[in-house]
Amino acid sequence: MMRKFHEITGTETGAVSGEAGTIGTRKVYVTGSRPDIRVPMKEIVQKVGAQDESGTELLKIYLYDTSGPFTDPGAAVNIRAGLPAMREAWIEERHDSMVLSQLSSEYGRQRLAGRVEGGQYFPEERLPRRAGKGCNVTQMHYARKGIVTPEMEYIAIRENQRRESLPELLKKQHPGDPRGTRMPQVITPEYVRDEVAAGRAVIPCNINHPECEPMIIGRNFLVKINANIGNSAMSSSIDEEVEKMIWAIRWGGDTVMDLSTGVDIHETREWIIRNSPVPIGTVPIYQALEKVGGQAEELSWEIFRDTLIEQAEQGVDYFTIHAGVRSNLLEAAQRRLTGIVSRGGSIMTKWCKAHGQESFLYTRFEEICEIAKAYDVTFSLGDGLRPGSIYDANDEAQIEELKTLGELTETAWRHDVQVMIEGPGHVPMHMIQENMDLQLKYCHGAPFYTLGPLVTDIAPGYDHITSAIGGTMMAWCGTAMLCYVTPKEHLGLPDKNDVREGIVAHKIAAHAADLAKGHPGAQARDNALSKARFEFRWQDQFALGLDPERAMGIRKALLPEDAEDKE
Amino acid sequence: MMRKFHEITGTETGAVSGEAGTIGTRKVYVTGSRPDIRVPMKEIVQKVGAQDESGTELLKIYLYDTSGPFTDPGAAVNIRAGLPAMREAWIEERHDSMVLSQLSSEYGRQRLAGRVEGGQYFPEERLPRRAGKGCNVTQMHYARKGIVTPEMEYIAIRENQRRESLPELLKKQHPGDPRGTRMPQVITPEYVRDEVAAGRAVIPCNINHPECEPMIIGRNFLVKINANIGNSAMSSSIDEEVEKMIWAIRWGGDTVMDLSTGVDIHETREWIIRNSPVPIGTVPIYQALEKVGGQAEELSWEIFRDTLIEQAEQGVDYFTIHAGVRSNLLEAAQRRLTGIVSRGGSIMTKWCKAHGQESFLYTRFEEICEIAKAYDVTFSLGDGLRPGSIYDANDEAQIEELKTLGELTETAWRHDVQVMIEGPGHVPMHMIQENMDLQLKYCHGAPFYTLGPLVTDIAPGYDHITSAIGGTMMAWCGTAMLCYVTPKEHLGLPDKNDVREGIVAHKIAAHAADLAKGHPGAQARDNALSKARFEFRWQDQFALGLDPERAMGIRKALLPEDAEDKE
Repeated sequence: MMRKFHEITGTETGAVSGEAGTIGTRKVYVTGSRPDIRVPMKEIVQKVGAQDESGTELLKIYLYDTSGPFTDPGAAVNIRAGLPAMREAWIEERHDSMVLSQLSSEYGRQRLAGRVEGGQYFPEERLPRRAGKGCNVTQMHYARKGIVTPEMEYIAIRENQRRESLPELLKKQHPGDPRGTRMPQVITPEYVRDEVAAGRAVIPCNINHPECEPMIIGRNFLVKINANIGNSAMSSSIDEEVEKMIWAIRWGGDTVMDLSTGVDIHETREWIIRNSPVPIGTVPIYQALEKVGGQAEELSWEIFRDTLIEQAEQGVDYFTIHAGVRSNLLEAAQRRLTGIVSRGGSIMTKWCKAHGQESFLYTRFEEICEIAKAYDVTFSLGDGLRPGSIYDANDEAQIEELKTLGELTETAWRHDVQVMIEGPGHVPMHMIQENMDLQLKYCHGAPFYTLGPLVTDIAPGYDHITSAIGGTMMAWCGTAMLCYVTPKEHLGLPDKNDVREGIVAHKIAAHAADLAKGHPGAQARDNALSKARFEFRWQDQFALGLDPERAMGIRKALLPEDAEDKE
Repeated sequence: MMRKFHEITGTETGAVSGEAGTIGTRKVYVTGSRPDIRVPMKEIVQKVGAQDESGTELLKIYLYDTSGPFTDPGAAVNIRAGLPAMREAWIEERHDSMVLSQLSSEYGRQRLAGRVEGGQYFPEERLPRRAGKGCNVTQMHYARKGIVTPEMEYIAIRENQRRESLPELLKKQHPGDPRGTRMPQVITPEYVRDEVAAGRAVIPCNINHPECEPMIIGRNFLVKINANIGNSAMSSSIDEEVEKMIWAIRWGGDTVMDLSTGVDIHETREWIIRNSPVPIGTVPIYQALEKVGGQAEELSWEIFRDTLIEQAEQGVDYFTIHAGVRSNLLEAAQRRLTGIVSRGGSIMTKWCKAHGQESFLYTRFEEICEIAKAYDVTFSLGDGLRPGSIYDANDEAQIEELKTLGELTETAWRHDVQVMIEGPGHVPMHMIQENMDLQLKYCHGAPFYTLGPLVTDIAPGYDHITSAIGGTMMAWCGTAMLCYVTPKEHLGLPDKNDVREGIVAHKIAAHAADLAKGHPGAQARDNALSKARFEFRWQDQFALGLDPERAMGIRKALLPEDAEDKE
């Protein structure tokens, strides 16, 4: 079924050229079948052709916009109040969840009770929501029942990027080489539903994160990227982490993982989620480890379970769970050049060795599914045994773990819990396709979410580039989301500038892969930018680029003082 | 035939760890079958294993070194004297060339006669060398006669990187996917000769550039990269350009193209060539255009011919010649989104239109070959019609021009003139293999030398990354040399930092492609670095990286003051 696009409303966010109100970059909203489905896009209007003639025509193009209300001058943004709970009505209408009278996690209640004067607490004390008895609130559950949720319609509008409105010139595109990806010309809400039902795509959207603008991760949609943030005890404050999240989505982060450590991670996370229009992911075992003083062998199912509930009730949209680290694989990992490099993998290995047992992540996986489906937390099944070097790429430990992740995927799907699979890491160019093929084979088509991969190990200080190369290849082969890598990978934690560098590098990778797969409409932005470049419309070229400020800054520094490029 | 490696001599260039004289990074020379064949390499010696135990072993690894005598503390470097004429004896011994009593080009003589007080002239007035009557001094000519030149032996030693000396652990490597490349386990001088004879590789080494350390460009050897430098009238001095060349080779530029413009290009070029240990390429039509006041229609064969001789007698190792711009292709180029973006292509198009004729580059090509073979100047047949956008990728104009370049290759080969073919530019990932396949088909296996390609047009300010992605794919498919792109591409001329960024990005691409093809020994550096990383030997990890200073600087800035990483 073809959907009609409805009205666009918009507020100007800074005209970049002469005629106010018409030419320039604006944030607009495309309204869906109901007035509260308002999908943000970046509208760029340019005057094309010779600039000194009358009768030149206007060219409009719409870009996917991850930046949230922060770039909407019509929206009143207040970090202390958080973003509007846009999805609240949709969640309520489903009548399958309820607001609890108190937090379910012991730790959450402790933190609340233990508040001290002068602490950095998010002002509103929010009560969490949970599925009603016997209910399942995952998007996969709805999809499998044939329901098209408002989230799904929102995503369909978002993925299409209004490309039906483009002039023919911009629509022209090389046929792609999809390598197994199949992308319809128009994404319908029903298509979104079917992909989620089949497990080929996930919509990470916890019912406790109603501020989240729905987005989808699946190989038959636009390739997405994730940015990791997170303070370390020493190096940054809550404010800085919120700022880093806003910064990350400004440059195009589709999801953000909060990998904070230290004593205030519960509070940091609250601030981030309440202000995040993109899904937030975490690695709960990191916080569980903090709770036991950093001693892996002290971890227990009870502490981990309480952590999952604590985070789910704050609104975390996806959990990395390293449930694939099985004791029978540890010997294979010993034979490696670089052992186990995943932090989660290393924590669980220590636990398994100390207890002489399979990890509770594996043995209690069904119980973890029960928690996930009560809040709609998506799983990102962690690759605790991912190779840490080119030498170890695609080795036995990785591949065997992938098989376990495939089993766990089937278990999660029996609970209608959404799943994606994490992948490496370090893989030379020519072994990337094999990695993807094996993931598809063993994990039944669940979306692949890879860290790069880096295609060589010889470039410390430049690993965002090494990763963007492998990421392009991996995403072309079918990876649905790329986790970014910054220039500080292997050296330390990224600062704001590293976040920008890492995101832009991986946006390039994601888009280059969309072009290679022949994603409908992907080439429009390239075409528009190339046309602007050929016509020496500098400001238009910048506006269409991934980082207008950077390009503009470089150009300005090169021109003699007082000179400006003619428009 | 297997060659034995002879003595290594070396001078220390800065120990990075405790034990002076043994552990650290040094410049060494590997001596060939005669004492004046001395091939530079970077030797890195590391102590592996646990650092506090006795009985740890030393690990030695040798890296390809493009940086010339500038990084040899034992060499007396003086920019005003130029580098030693290392190849002079080899050239003399062949008895097929002679030193002329004066410059052959009219322009060269004019510049000499017109010298003024205070001008920036290279101190030594060098007399040029030219082939004797009826002689052909190209490496291809020797190769086809079955001769192994000292240049070829030098290259064989250089390409092998002493990998026979590596411990088994470092030699371990994934089987590659060579995609048609065939690389022997050991490169012999005879193999070098045979590849040059077949036209599959070139050794750019003008007899007037005896300072040049021989290197080879061919798909069955290590992937190489080129860095463009060049002043513009306004923005830089001769000193700065020499410094930029030295800077470019320090980071790994295998060849350097001098694209200078302005009144002093003759003198700038002299300074650069006399100080360059790597081959220097130029685009002679740029200088010819300067000579006619920038009016393309005023160009003539006579002026161009004189420019070729002028540059050949200075020692330019390869010429970009846009002889493939034929008048029958201009209509196809008109249909493009971004027309003709190659500067050389655009100059020749103007000339053809003004004169209603085929360009003299095409009609006089046999005469150009006569000049090239008298000095051993390699051709880099320019792609004057290369596409300037993703939209125009692999279009008719490009492919038809490639066929002409193939014809010209055959003509050049009849004269035993070495040829490589320039390629795009802008190509989405999935169309890169096709580009390579067509080049091989139409150009008979001559080495491909591509500009990136960029895999998308949407990232002005980050095009070094976009290009490194396409470059990796292109080099994996078989491109022999990548021309770098810097972050300033499409925006302005690169400064020193851009040169570094551009080079490192493309060194990553070249190496990643060597790994993908399964180039013997390519993985050793990755293995050594990964091992150092796993053992937390930070300084060793930095020493093995492409940019030790950058990695070290990042790490240092992240550590608390006074703290140092344990070794």
